[in-house]
Amino acid sequence: MYAITIPEPGGPEVLAWAEVPDPVPAAGEVLVEVVASAVNRADLLQRQGFYDPPPGSSPYPGLECAGRIVALGPGVAGWAVGDEVCALLSGGGHAQRVAVPAGQLLPVPKGLSPIEAAALPEAVCTVWSNVFQVAHLRPGETLLVQGGASGIGTMAIQLGKAVGARVAVTAGSAAKLARCAELGADITIDYREQDFVAALREATDGAGADVILDIIGAKYLQRNVDALAVNGRLVIIGLQGGVKGEINLNTLLRKRAAVAATNLRGRPLGEKAAIVAAVREHVWPLVESGVVKPVIDRVLPMADAGAAHQVVEAGEQVGKVVLQA
Amino acid sequence: MYAITIPEPGGPEVLAWAEVPDPVPAAGEVLVEVVASAVNRADLLQRQGFYDPPPGSSPYPGLECAGRIVALGPGVAGWAVGDEVCALLSGGGHAQRVAVPAGQLLPVPKGLSPIEAAALPEAVCTVWSNVFQVAHLRPGETLLVQGGASGIGTMAIQLGKAVGARVAVTAGSAAKLARCAELGADITIDYREQDFVAALREATDGAGADVILDIIGAKYLQRNVDALAVNGRLVIIGLQGGVKGEINLNTLLRKRAAVAATNLRGRPLGEKAAIVAAVREHVWPLVESGVVKPVIDRVLPMADAGAAHQVVEAGEQVGKVVLQA
Repeated sequence: MYAITIPEPGGPEVLAWAEVPDPVPAAGEVLVEVVASAVNRADLLQRQGFYDPPPGSSPYPGLECAGRIVALGPGVAGWAVGDEVCALLSGGGHAQRVAVPAGQLLPVPKGLSPIEAAALPEAVCTVWSNVFQVAHLRPGETLLVQGGASGIGTMAIQLGKAVGARVAVTAGSAAKLARCAELGADITIDYREQDFVAALREATDGAGADVILDIIGAKYLQRNVDALAVNGRLVIIGLQGGVKGEINLNTLLRKRAAVAATNLRGRPLGEKAAIVAAVREHVWPLVESGVVKPVIDRVLPMADAGAAHQVVEAGEQVGKVVLQA
Repeated sequence: MYAITIPEPGGPEVLAWAEVPDPVPAAGEVLVEVVASAVNRADLLQRQGFYDPPPGSSPYPGLECAGRIVALGPGVAGWAVGDEVCALLSGGGHAQRVAVPAGQLLPVPKGLSPIEAAALPEAVCTVWSNVFQVAHLRPGETLLVQGGASGIGTMAIQLGKAVGARVAVTAGSAAKLARCAELGADITIDYREQDFVAALREATDGAGADVILDIIGAKYLQRNVDALAVNGRLVIIGLQGGVKGEINLNTLLRKRAAVAATNLRGRPLGEKAAIVAAVREHVWPLVESGVVKPVIDRVLPMADAGAAHQVVEAGEQVGKVVLQA
C-alpha cells in the first residue's frame, strides 16, 4: 500500500507518499481500508521530529480515519468485513490501510459520508474526554475555548452548546470569530485586538469561565487562571505557547480552581476504548440528529499531505483539513 | 464573654484574652458554648495580618470547636439546646461562645469527649473535601501526604488507610515519621535527609503518587508534579513554601495529571454544609468505631493561645494543639 512517510524530520516538503508494507491486524484489531483521514497538530509535530508515535503504533502520521473494514484480526466481535467505520488512531491514518484496535472504532454516523466522518473522531474524543470527563462542564456554565476556529475548537463550541453551556471563544480574525458565532459561540474575542481575560470578565459580569479548553500552555497559563471563575477548571491539551509556565497558586487557591493537562494519543487502549464508547453513547446521537456537525475547511488528496500541513501550520483553516485517500 | 483577640498584627504575644460582646445567632445559626477549640495554621496567618476572616465571619480566630448548644437562632431544625456538638467555623472558635450555621454542626462522636471532638472538624473536613471529593482517592491508590505529622496530615494518613489506599508521608524528623507509621503510614520520607521524589519513586516501583495532599505550594510545585503517577492529582491546601511557582506543563500533560488548589474557609455556606454532611455520613462511623482517632499533641488553656501558636509555628507538634475554654 501507499502511506505518508517521514523520511527525515523537517518542513511539509519532507512528507512522501510512498509504498510501504501493508499493516497486519493483530488480535483485537481490524484492518480498515481508508477513504479519508484528517490532519491534526500532532501530525505536524511528528513530522518535525518532536512527537514520536507511542510504542507499538504505526510509524506514519494520521490520528483518525474513516473507511471500510476489509479484514478482522483474531478475537474481534461486533464488527464485520464491509462495515463502514471511522476510528480514533494512535497513528497510521494517512495511508491506504490501517490496523485499528476494535475499541477505537465507531460506525460512520447515519447520514454522513466517510469524508465527513473522517473529520470527527479526534476532535470529538478530545472534546468529550477533556471538557466533559475531565472538567465536567455542566449546563448553564461558561466554557472558554482558546482557538475556537480549530478542528477541536469548532467541535467544542457545538458540544458546549448542545449540553446547554454558554460558550466563549478566542480566535485571531473577525472572519474566524464570525464562523464561531455561526456555530453557536455566545462570546467572541479577537485575541489580537483584545485582552481575553478582561473581555471574558466583562461578558460574564466578572465571573469568568467555569471551564477553559486551552491549546497554548505556558504563555497563557497565568492569564487562563485569571480568567477562571470560582471552582473553575482549566484543561490544557496543547502547548503551542511553550512548556514552562509560572502560576500564582494563591489565585488558584482562592478560586478553588484546578489545572489539568492531558493528551489522547498516549492513553492506554482501555482508556481510549472507554472514551470512544462514551462518545458513541453521548455524541453520536447528536451527530445523527444534525445538532453537531463535522466542520471541514477543505478536502485535499492524501498524497498532497504536505499542502494540508502548510494550511494547518499557518492556522488558515476553520475546522478540519481532510485528506482523501 | 471572653475571646482571643488580635489588637494588632504581630507575633504570638499580641494575642489577648479579652472581654468582648456575646455573639447573637442569626437565622439558621445556633449559639454554642465552647468547651474546646484547636489551633490551625490559618489562625497564625490571621494573627500576622495575612488572612482576614471572610465577610460576615467572627473577627476572632478559631476554625473549629466543640461544646454545647445554648440557644437556637430562628429557623433551625434538627438541633436542640443542650446538644453536644462540634463544628466547622469560619472564625470565632477561640472564645467562650460562638454562633454557628446549623449546616456546620456535627454531633460529638459517641465515645469521644468534647476536647477530643474539638480536634476533628477542620482536619476531617479538609481531608475529606480534598482527598476524596476533589482528588477522588480510590482503594489501592497511593496517597502522598506532605507534612504527615500535622493535624491534617495525621488525619489524612488515617482516612487514606481506612479506604484501602497506600499512604506515604513526609516529615522533618525520625520521631514524627515513627508516629506517622504508628498511624498507618506505609512509606515514610524524611524531607530533611531524602529527596522525596526519588524516595517515593523507589518505594512505588517508579509509579509515583496517585494523589498528593500538599501544604507547601510554590517551592514543591514542580517536584510534586514530578512525584505524581500517570493520572495523578495534586491538591494544594497550603502555601507555606510560597505563592508563585513554575511548572513544566509537558510533564503534566504526559502524565495526564491535574493540580487543584482549594481552601475551606472561603467556601459558601452551602458547600460547607455539603462537606459536613458527607463527613457525618462517611467519616463519623469510622470515628465512632475507633478506626479513625483524633490525634492530640497537647491541650492548653484557651487564654494561653499565644503559647499554642508558638508550638504550631515551630512545627513541634504531632497532630492538633487543642485549646480548652
